[in-house]
Amino acid sequence: MSSPDYRAQGLKDIIVTLDGAILTIVLNRAKDRNTLTENIVDETTKVFDLADRDDRVRVVILTAEHTAPAYCSGADISGGWKVLWRPEAEKEGEHAHRDGGGEVSLAIMRCRKITIAAINGHAAGVGMTAFQLPFDFRFVWAGAKLTFPFVRRGIVPEATSTYLLPRLIGHSRANSLLLTGATVTPESPYIKDLYHQILPTREGVYPAAKAFAEELAANTSMVSIAYAKGLLQHPGSSIEENHLLDSRAIKLGAMSNDGKEGVLAFKERRLPKFRDKLSENVSPWYPWWRTIDVRHRQSKL
Amino acid sequence: MSSPDYRAQGLKDIIVTLDGAILTIVLNRAKDRNTLTENIVDETTKVFDLADRDDRVRVVILTAEHTAPAYCSGADISGGWKVLWRPEAEKEGEHAHRDGGGEVSLAIMRCRKITIAAINGHAAGVGMTAFQLPFDFRFVWAGAKLTFPFVRRGIVPEATSTYLLPRLIGHSRANSLLLTGATVTPESPYIKDLYHQILPTREGVYPAAKAFAEELAANTSMVSIAYAKGLLQHPGSSIEENHLLDSRAIKLGAMSNDGKEGVLAFKERRLPKFRDKLSENVSPWYPWWRTIDVRHRQSKL
Amino acid sequence: MSSPDYRAQGLKDIIVTLDGAILTIVLNRAKDRNTLTENIVDETTKVFDLADRDDRVRVVILTAEHTAPAYCSGADISGGWKVLWRPEAEKEGEHAHRDGGGEVSLAIMRCRKITIAAINGHAAGVGMTAFQLPFDFRFVWAGAKLTFPFVRRGIVPEATSTYLLPRLIGHSRANSLLLTGATVTPESPYIKDLYHQILPTREGVYPAAKAFAEELAANTSMVSIAYAKGLLQHPGSSIEENHLLDSRAIKLGAMSNDGKEGVLAFKERRLPKFRDKLSENVSPWYPWWRTIDVRHRQSKL
Repeated sequence: MSSPDYRAQGLKDIIVTLDGAILTIVLNRAKDRNTLTENIVDETTKVFDLADRDDRVRVVILTAEHTAPAYCSGADISGGWKVLWRPEAEKEGEHAHRDGGGEVSLAIMRCRKITIAAINGHAAGVGMTAFQLPFDFRFVWAGAKLTFPFVRRGIVPEATSTYLLPRLIGHSRANSLLLTGATVTPESPYIKDLYHQILPTREGVYPAAKAFAEELAANTSMVSIAYAKGLLQHPGSSIEENHLLDSRAIKLGAMSNDGKEGVLAFKERRLPKFRDKLSENVSPWYPWWRTIDVRHRQSKL
Repeated sequence: MSSPDYRAQGLKDIIVTLDGAILTIVLNRAKDRNTLTENIVDETTKVFDLADRDDRVRVVILTAEHTAPAYCSGADISGGWKVLWRPEAEKEGEHAHRDGGGEVSLAIMRCRKITIAAINGHAAGVGMTAFQLPFDFRFVWAGAKLTFPFVRRGIVPEATSTYLLPRLIGHSRANSLLLTGATVTPESPYIKDLYHQILPTREGVYPAAKAFAEELAANTSMVSIAYAKGLLQHPGSSIEENHLLDSRAIKLGAMSNDGKEGVLAFKERRLPKFRDKLSENVSPWYPWWRTIDVRHRQSKL
Repeated sequence: MSSPDYRAQGLKDIIVTLDGAILTIVLNRAKDRNTLTENIVDETTKVFDLADRDDRVRVVILTAEHTAPAYCSGADISGGWKVLWRPEAEKEGEHAHRDGGGEVSLAIMRCRKITIAAINGHAAGVGMTAFQLPFDFRFVWAGAKLTFPFVRRGIVPEATSTYLLPRLIGHSRANSLLLTGATVTPESPYIKDLYHQILPTREGVYPAAKAFAEELAANTSMVSIAYAKGLLQHPGSSIEENHLLDSRAIKLGAMSNDGKEGVLAFKERRLPKFRDKLSENVSPWYPWWRTIDVRHRQSKL
C-alpha cells in the first residue's frame, strides 16, 4: 500500500491536503489567474498518479481559492504559446509535441478514484478543458464566465476536449461551444448539462463539492468505483462485448468482501462499511483495454 | 410465419397478452417487488425472442401491476448475489459468468419490433438497467423513485448499462447517475432525457404507453422499423459507411410494397396500411453487422 | 487560390450569393415546397465543394425564402421514390444505389468552413436530415413543423441521419424522433438540443444566422476552424490517440501566423485579424483519417 506524503513532494504551484479520504488540490497561482505552466502540468499529473495508488484516497477534488481572479484563465501565454513546449520535443518537429493540458487530462482520466472539479471562478481555455472535462463531476459557481476561446486565438481545442466534450454533452452542444469560442455562464443551455451542480456563490462551491465527496467516500466501494469508471470509459466495442465485460466485473464484485458487505448492509437496513482496497482487491484482468503509450520517446524514463 | 401461443409457454413470473399488434408483458412477482430471478430472465428472454419472430406483433410493452410495491426493485438478493449464478458457469471461474440482466438486455435489443417500458412504480438496479435502457421508449410515473445503486452495494453497473446509458443521455448525466447511486425522480435534470413521457399517476402510465403503441402499430411499417433500429444500433463505423448502409436500406424500402403504399397514401392524403412482414420481406443482407456469440459454451444448445 | 464565379455555374434550383466571407445558398424551388430533386443534389454538392476550396469563404449558410410554403418538405415524390434513382445504379441492383440526401450530407460534412442551416419554414424528411444534421449550427423558426416521417412512409431514415442525429443529441431523443415519425416544433424536449438558436419569426431566422456568421467570420481563424472540425469529426479511436492528434494540431496552430496573431491580439486587448488561408496554411498531415470512397463506380470520373 502506497501512502505518499504529499507535503514532501516539493509542490510549488498547487497546495495538496488529505482530509480523511478526500484529497484536495488547490491551484496556487492566484496572482497569475491560475494559468497553466509546465510546472503545474508536472505537479498535477504527479499528484493524480499518486492519488490513484494511495489507498487512503477515495475522492480527489481540484479547486482554486474562491478569492482568486479566476479558477483558471487558460495557459500562461505571457511569453507566447511556446511556454508549454518541452525543449526535447521542440527540436524534433510537430509530431513530437505533447500538449501539456492533454497530459493533465490523461492523468485525471487514469485516476481510478472519484474526481471532482470545483470551479469557483471564471474559466477559459485549459481551465475549461483539462481542468474540467476529464473529471467525473463538475460543481460550478453560477456567475462563472466560461469560454473555450481556441478558434478565436488561432489555435485548436486541446487537452482531448474534442474527444471528451461531445461524449459528455453531445455534438450539437459541443459545436456551439468549441466552434464559436463564445463566453457563457453555467445556466446556458449550451453548457448546463456539463455540470452536476450549480451554486449561487463562489465560496459555496468547494463546500458543496466536499460534502458530496464525503458522502460518496463513506458509502461507495472504492473497487466498485474503479470498475464502473473502467466500464464507462472502455465499454467494449459492441453491446455483446460490454456484456462480457460487465458480467465478469459484477461476478468479481459480488464475490468480494465489499460485495458481501453490500448485501449484508442492505438486509440489515444500515449503511455499508466498505474496506476493500485498490492495491489488494482488483483482479489482474483489470485493465482489460489496450492503451497507447503517448509519451514522447525522449522523455521516457 | 411464426405465431406462438404465449399461454402455452408455461410462463410463471410474467403474464403475456397479445392484443391486436401489441404484446404486453406484465411482471408477475408483485409480492416480491418484481425482483429479478433466474426464471424471470429465462421467461422475458424467451418472450422477446418469440415476439421478434411473430409477424402479428408490432410493439412489445413491458410493465408491472400499478398496485405493486415497485416496478422492479432490482435482483432478488434474499440469498445473496449468488441467486443469479448459473451452476454450470459457477464451476469455471469469473470469465464464465453471464449476467442475467445482460441476457435480458441483449434479447430486448435483438427484438426488431418497437419496444416500450411502462415504468409505473419505483425502480432500482436491474429495474433501471435491463428493464429500461434497452427499450426504444420509456414511459414513467412522475413519482417513481429511481436508482442505480451498484457502487453503494459493492458491485458494478450491469446489464450493459455502461454501454447503453451514456449513448442514451451522454456521459455527463450517466456519471451523475451511475457513479453516485443517487435516488432521483424522472424530472431530475440528470435523468429526464431518458424518458419519452412522464405521467402524473401510476395507473396512467400503461394506458399512455398502450395508446402510443397502437398509433405506431397502425401507422408505421414493421420492416421500416426493423431497418431503422438496425441503422441506429449499427450505424457503420464512419459516416461514409453509414451512407452505404442507409442507401441500400432506403432502396429496399422504396421498392417494397410498404414503400409503394407510403407514397400512395401520401398522395391520396390518407393514412397508410402497411402489410409487409418481417418473416417475408427483409433482405438477406440484414443484419449487416457481426455479432459475438456471448453464450456460455456449456449452455449452448 | 480558388475563387470560383458562383454565377457561372449554371445553377437553377439554388441561388448562391457571396457577401464578404459569407456564402449564402437559397433553395429556389418555393413553388414545389423546396423538395429535393436529383438536380438540387448535384447543385448543392457542387457548391459546398467549391466553398470548401474558396479562400474567400469562411461561412456557408443554407436557407430558403421565408415566404416559401416550407423550408424543405422532403424529397420530390410526385413520381414515386424513383425520382432519385440514378440510371446507372438502377440497373445494377440494391447495392449500387447512392442516396441523394446522403451525397448532400457528405458534401456538407466535407466542407471545412463553418456551416449554418437557417430553417425559416416547415421541414420534413430530407429537409430534416441532409438540410439540417450535417451543419455545424442550426437556426430555426419557433413555429416550424418538423418531422422525420420515414417509418410512416415505408422507407428508412436516410442521408446519414442514423449516424448524425444520435451523436448530436443522444440516442434517447433520436429514438423519439426517428422511430415515431412524429411532428414536433423546435421547443419540444425531443429536439430542442439540436438548435443553436430558436427565433420567433420566419423573417428573423436568416438575419440572425447572418449576423452570427459575420461575427464568427471576423473573429475566428479559418485554419483553426478546419482543424477543430476535423478533430470533432475524427477524434481518434481512444483518448490517447486524440491527445496525439490535438497535440500536433495545436503545435501547428501555435506556430502559424494566425496563432501568433491570436497571442498578440490578446496581449494588445484588441480583436484579432486572421489572414491564414486553407489553400496555403494547412499541413499535409491533414486529413489524418481514412475515408472510404463511396461513389458508385460507374459514376466515377
